[in-house]
Amino acid sequence: MAAVLRGSRYLAGGCSKYVTFVFASTRSMASKTQVGFVGLGNMGNPMAKNLLKHGYPVIATDVFPEACKELQELGAQIVDNPAEVADKADRIITMLPSSPNVIDAYTGPNGILKKVKKGSLLIDSSTIDPSVSKEMAAASEKMGAVFMDAPVSGGVGAASSGKLTFMVGGAEEEFTAAKELLSCMGANVVFCGQVGTGQAAKICNNMLLAIGMIGTSETMNLGIRLGLDPKLLAKILNMSSGRCWSSDTYNPVPGVMEGVPSGNNYQGGFGTQLMAKDLGLAQNTATNTRTPVPLGSLAHQIYRMMCARGYASKDFSSVFQFLREEEGQ
Amino acid sequence: MAAVLRGSRYLAGGCSKYVTFVFASTRSMASKTQVGFVGLGNMGNPMAKNLLKHGYPVIATDVFPEACKELQELGAQIVDNPAEVADKADRIITMLPSSPNVIDAYTGPNGILKKVKKGSLLIDSSTIDPSVSKEMAAASEKMGAVFMDAPVSGGVGAASSGKLTFMVGGAEEEFTAAKELLSCMGANVVFCGQVGTGQAAKICNNMLLAIGMIGTSETMNLGIRLGLDPKLLAKILNMSSGRCWSSDTYNPVPGVMEGVPSGNNYQGGFGTQLMAKDLGLAQNTATNTRTPVPLGSLAHQIYRMMCARGYASKDFSSVFQFLREEEGQ
Amino acid sequence: MAAVLRGSRYLAGGCSKYVTFVFASTRSMASKTQVGFVGLGNMGNPMAKNLLKHGYPVIATDVFPEACKELQELGAQIVDNPAEVADKADRIITMLPSSPNVIDAYTGPNGILKKVKKGSLLIDSSTIDPSVSKEMAAASEKMGAVFMDAPVSGGVGAASSGKLTFMVGGAEEEFTAAKELLSCMGANVVFCGQVGTGQAAKICNNMLLAIGMIGTSETMNLGIRLGLDPKLLAKILNMSSGRCWSSDTYNPVPGVMEGVPSGNNYQGGFGTQLMAKDLGLAQNTATNTRTPVPLGSLAHQIYRMMCARGYASKDFSSVFQFLREEEGQ
Amino acid sequence: MAAVLRGSRYLAGGCSKYVTFVFASTRSMASKTQVGFVGLGNMGNPMAKNLLKHGYPVIATDVFPEACKELQELGAQIVDNPAEVADKADRIITMLPSSPNVIDAYTGPNGILKKVKKGSLLIDSSTIDPSVSKEMAAASEKMGAVFMDAPVSGGVGAASSGKLTFMVGGAEEEFTAAKELLSCMGANVVFCGQVGTGQAAKICNNMLLAIGMIGTSETMNLGIRLGLDPKLLAKILNMSSGRCWSSDTYNPVPGVMEGVPSGNNYQGGFGTQLMAKDLGLAQNTATNTRTPVPLGSLAHQIYRMMCARGYASKDFSSVFQFLREEEGQ
Repeated sequence: MAAVLRGSRYLAGGCSKYVTFVFASTRSMASKTQVGFVGLGNMGNPMAKNLLKHGYPVIATDVFPEACKELQELGAQIVDNPAEVADKADRIITMLPSSPNVIDAYTGPNGILKKVKKGSLLIDSSTIDPSVSKEMAAASEKMGAVFMDAPVSGGVGAASSGKLTFMVGGAEEEFTAAKELLSCMGANVVFCGQVGTGQAAKICNNMLLAIGMIGTSETMNLGIRLGLDPKLLAKILNMSSGRCWSSDTYNPVPGVMEGVPSGNNYQGGFGTQLMAKDLGLAQNTATNTRTPVPLGSLAHQIYRMMCARGYASKDFSSVFQFLREEEGQ
Repeated sequence: MAAVLRGSRYLAGGCSKYVTFVFASTRSMASKTQVGFVGLGNMGNPMAKNLLKHGYPVIATDVFPEACKELQELGAQIVDNPAEVADKADRIITMLPSSPNVIDAYTGPNGILKKVKKGSLLIDSSTIDPSVSKEMAAASEKMGAVFMDAPVSGGVGAASSGKLTFMVGGAEEEFTAAKELLSCMGANVVFCGQVGTGQAAKICNNMLLAIGMIGTSETMNLGIRLGLDPKLLAKILNMSSGRCWSSDTYNPVPGVMEGVPSGNNYQGGFGTQLMAKDLGLAQNTATNTRTPVPLGSLAHQIYRMMCARGYASKDFSSVFQFLREEEGQ
Repeated sequence: MAAVLRGSRYLAGGCSKYVTFVFASTRSMASKTQVGFVGLGNMGNPMAKNLLKHGYPVIATDVFPEACKELQELGAQIVDNPAEVADKADRIITMLPSSPNVIDAYTGPNGILKKVKKGSLLIDSSTIDPSVSKEMAAASEKMGAVFMDAPVSGGVGAASSGKLTFMVGGAEEEFTAAKELLSCMGANVVFCGQVGTGQAAKICNNMLLAIGMIGTSETMNLGIRLGLDPKLLAKILNMSSGRCWSSDTYNPVPGVMEGVPSGNNYQGGFGTQLMAKDLGLAQNTATNTRTPVPLGSLAHQIYRMMCARGYASKDFSSVFQFLREEEGQ
Repeated sequence: MAAVLRGSRYLAGGCSKYVTFVFASTRSMASKTQVGFVGLGNMGNPMAKNLLKHGYPVIATDVFPEACKELQELGAQIVDNPAEVADKADRIITMLPSSPNVIDAYTGPNGILKKVKKGSLLIDSSTIDPSVSKEMAAASEKMGAVFMDAPVSGGVGAASSGKLTFMVGGAEEEFTAAKELLSCMGANVVFCGQVGTGQAAKICNNMLLAIGMIGTSETMNLGIRLGLDPKLLAKILNMSSGRCWSSDTYNPVPGVMEGVPSGNNYQGGFGTQLMAKDLGLAQNTATNTRTPVPLGSLAHQIYRMMCARGYASKDFSSVFQFLREEEGQ
C-alpha cells in the first residue's frame, strides 16, 4: 500500500496505476529478497549481521575491504561500491561516519544513484546534517527512488543486540516498509515527520544529553567539594527536580553506579569526539535556523576543548574528570 | 537520646549527666510544647500553619506585622522579634529570604542568640550560602544551642499541602529531633551530612535544574524550528538519553503538558528571580571552592539577563519564551 | 607581469607564450576599460560609484532593478544578470549578502562563469564562508579565470568615502591587479594569503570585535553599578590593559563618546543581525576546523538572543542596552 | 588642607579647630616621618623598597618573618604585627593576597585598628572585594582613621620600577595625601570616587582584560587553522576593530611579539591563578549587584578549568596553549 502511494508520487507524467502496482508488488513480495548495506563500521557491521540473522540476504560494501570479511563469512555478498549495491538490491541501508561520506555514497561517481532502480527504498542511518538528508532525498526523488533518514540512538552494544532506537524522517506512507527492515536491528522505530526530522530528533536529543551530562558533572563535582557524599547527592538529585538521564542512568562519577563507563576509567561508551561531532551538527542547524542555543553551544565548546586536551576517545562522561582538579594541584 | 548526646556535647566543663538529662527530658517531653517560627512569608506562613495543624503551639514573629495576622487568628502567639521567640521556645524554625536576613535573625540586636536557651534546637529552612549556615552553627554552639540547615524543595503548593522535601545538614544525632518537626511540614526529610550540606544539596539540585530547564528550552525550540512536532519531540526525548525533569515533568513549551506554568502563560511556579538568586548562591560556593561550573555559570547569567529584560516574576520555565523569536520578527 | 604568470598557469596544455601575452596585454592595457559590478546594495552602490569617480566605465547588475537606477543615471551600463556582465567585462567585483547569493552569481544558470572570458579577474567582496570562496575559486579556475576573495571592513560610511579596508586572498601574483581596482574604493588593501584567507581575516576580526564589544558592555555596566562614573571608567580602561577598540573608539555607553551609535539610540552603524551573521560564519569555520572558540560562540548566541528580542536592526553596540536593567525593574 | 577637612569630619563631638589643626599639621609636617607597611610579598617588597628610596623611614611587618629580612637590611624597622605598625606610624600601606587577610590585618586581634591613631591614613593596595573595602572603611572611621582602597595594575616589574598604576577610592579630600605616598611607587595615581571604587575599577579592568585575552587567543587560533600567518593576522587585527591590548601589546601566540610571556613558554607575567581570583571577585560583585556578565563569567570558568588542568602558575596568556590542539592529536 505504502509503495503504491510512493510509486504514484514518483512516476511523473505517464505513470499508470499498472506500473505503480508493479513497483509496489515487486518490493512487497520481495520481503526476504536482498537488502543492500553500505558502510560496515563499528555500527554498520552488527546492524548488517542482524539483517542476516533475520533471514535477509545482504549485499554489502565498504571502502575498507577488510571491513567486509566477517560479513562475507556469514554469507553476505560483497561488491565493489554503492552503485553495485544499488544494481542488485532495491532496499538499501547506509551507515556512514559523516555528511561528506553520505554525499559520496549517494551522488558520487560510484554512488547509489548511479544505478538505483526506480521505486527503491534508501534508508540512511548515519547521523548527518538534516539539510544534507533533504538534498539526498531530492536527488533520490529525481531518480524515482525514496530516501528516508533514520539515525539511531544506542551505541555499539545496542547495535549488536538489535536494541537500537531509530528516528525516521520521510514520507509517512513509506514508514511501514522502512519499519519492517529497521525492526530487525532496533527495539524502537519512531516516525518523526518529513525528511530530515529523524536527524533533527537525533541531534536535539544528543544536544540535551550533552548539556545534562556536563551539568551533572559540574553539579556532582561542586557537591562533593561542598562536603556531600557522591552517592547521597546522586540519590537526592534523582528524587528531585535535578534528575536527568546522566544523573540516574549514566552517572559520570566513579563509584556512584556500576556498569557505566565512569566505573571503567571512561572506556567504552560514547566517545567525546563523537559527541563533539553531533554538537557541531546541532550548532550548524541552530546557526542555519538562527536559533539561540547558548548552553548547547557552550557544551559543544567544552567537548571541543576536551578533544584538544586528550579526551577525544574517552566516553563523554569523562567531562567529570576534565572539570575536576588534577591530582597534586 | 539524641538530646542527651547533644547536651553532653554542648555543656562544656562542669556539665553533669544530671544537667544533661534535664535538658534532654525538657525537650523530649516537650514534644507538643511551643515551637518558635521566624519568618511568615509565602513559604513560612503555610509551614507554620502545618505545625499548628499537627497540634504544636506556635510562637511566631515577622518583620512585617501584617504577615502575622492570619496565623494569630489560627491561634499562634505573636511576639515582637526573634529574641522574644527564643525566650519562649526551645525549638525554632526560621524561614527567611536571604543570608543577611538569617544573619540578622540569629545574631542581630534582637536576634535569637540574644535569648536562646541552652540545648535549644534551631532549624533554618531558608536557602542561603552554606558558609553562612556554618557561621550560624558556630555562633549557636557558643551559646549552647544546636543549629541545623534544612532548606526545602517544592514551592508554595508543597508548603501548603505539607509535601515539602527537607535537605538537612547538622549533627547526625540531632536528626531525629529535627525530623519530628519537619515531618509535619514535609513528605521527605533527608539527612545530608554536616552543617551546610543541606544547603549544598539544595543549591546543587537547583543548579542542575536550571541547566536542564534552559537546555530543554533550547532543544525544544531548535527541534520545532527543524520541523518537529513539540509533543512528539518531548516524547522522543523522554524515552531517550535527553530525558530530564524539565522535559518529562515540567515541560516549558506551551501545549505539551497540562498543569504546568507553560500552559498558564508562565504564571505561578518558581519565579525567574528566585532561580537567579539560587544560581547566585551556587556561583558563590563554586567560586569559593574554586570549582569550575561553566554551564551553571552561564545558566546564572541567562536568568540574570531575563530578570533585566522583564521576566523576573515569571516562572523559570519562561526561558523558552525568552529564547524564542518574538512575534513579528 | 602578474597576468603573464596567471595566463601561463591557467592555459593548460597547448598554452603558448604568445597567447599568454595577449591575455596579459589585454587586461593591462585595458586599465580604464569596463569593470563589472554585481550587487548594488547598501555597500555595493557606493563602491561602484567610486569606480565611476576614478574613471572606470562600470557595467553592473542587481536582482532588484530599482537598485540600479542611481548608478545608471551616473553613467553605468546596466545589464540583466551576472552572465551578461561577464560577457562584457574581464574584471568583475561582486558584493552580495551571503554564500547562496555568491554561489548563484557565479555558478547559477545566469552566473558569471557561464560567459566568463579566459584570464578574467573576479573579485568577491562579500563576507561569506571561506570554504565557499575556495569552491568559487576552483570553479573559476576551471573556466580559465582568476578568483580572489576580498571582503571589507568599514561600513556604509567607509564605502561612500572610499575608505574601506580590503582583506584579499588569492594568488599573490594577481594582487597588484586587484589592488589597482580596490584602491579606488578603499584606503587599505591587505594581502592575506591563499584564497579564503581574506574571508578568514574578516571573520576573525569580527569575532574578536564582538567579544570586545560585549565584554566592554558588561564591564561598563558592572562598573556603573559599582559606583564608577562611566566616562572615568572608560578613561581608566583605555589607559590600562582592558583597552580595546570598543572601549576607546566605539564606546557602547550613551554619553561617553560623541559621534558613535550609542549617542544616537544605537541607530546606524553595524546592525546586530549582520554581526550575528558574521559570528555564524565564524562558528561554522570553527566547527569545520574543530577549533574551540568558547567566547566567540557565546558572543554568537548573545547576538542571536538579541535578534530574537527585537534588537536585529540596532547597532551591535546596543548589547549594552540589552544587558542593562530595564526601566522600572 | 585635606587633613584639616578629614580631621573635622572624624573628630566627633568635642573636636575643636585646634585639635584638628594639630592632627593635620602632625601628618603634613611629618611627610618624611615613618610610613607603615603591612605585607611584604612579591608586590609589597618592591613597593616598600621604593618608599625607602624616596627617603621615607619604613616600619613593616609580614606573617612570614623571612619576608622581612631584605627590607630590614635596607634599613626598615620590622615589628611583630599590624597593631605594632599602627602604634608607630600614622600612614600605613597594606598589600595582602585576599579579603580574609585584609580583614585580619585591620580588624583581627593584632590588627591595625587595635592601636590605630586618630587621623591616621590607611591605604589598602590589595585587590579584594569592594564590599570588604567598605567594611574596612567603616571600621576605620569608627576609630577616627581614614581608609582608602588603592589597588594596583602592573605586576612585579612595575612594582620594582615604581611604575604601578593606583586606582584610588575614598574621600576626595584625602586624595592629595594618599597621592604623595603612592607616587613614590607608581607612575599613575587615579582618583576613582568613593571607597570601593578603586577596587571596582581594578576588577572591571581585569575582567575586560581576561575577555580580551581569551578572545584574542581563540581568534588567533582560528585564524591560524584557516591558513593565516599569525604575525599577519595580528597586524590586521591591530589596524582594525578587533584591536585590543592582548592583541597589540601582549600577544598570546609564541613568535608574534618579543618580550612577552608567550615568547618564554608563558613563564613570568600574571599567573592564571591570580587572574582566576580577580575574575572570582568580578563574579561576586556582579552577583551581588545582579549584573549580567555572560562573557566575564565564562572567562572566569575558563581560567578555573585551566587551574584544574595544570596551568595555575603559567601566565594568563597561556589560554592560547590551553585551547590549541595538543601535539599528536
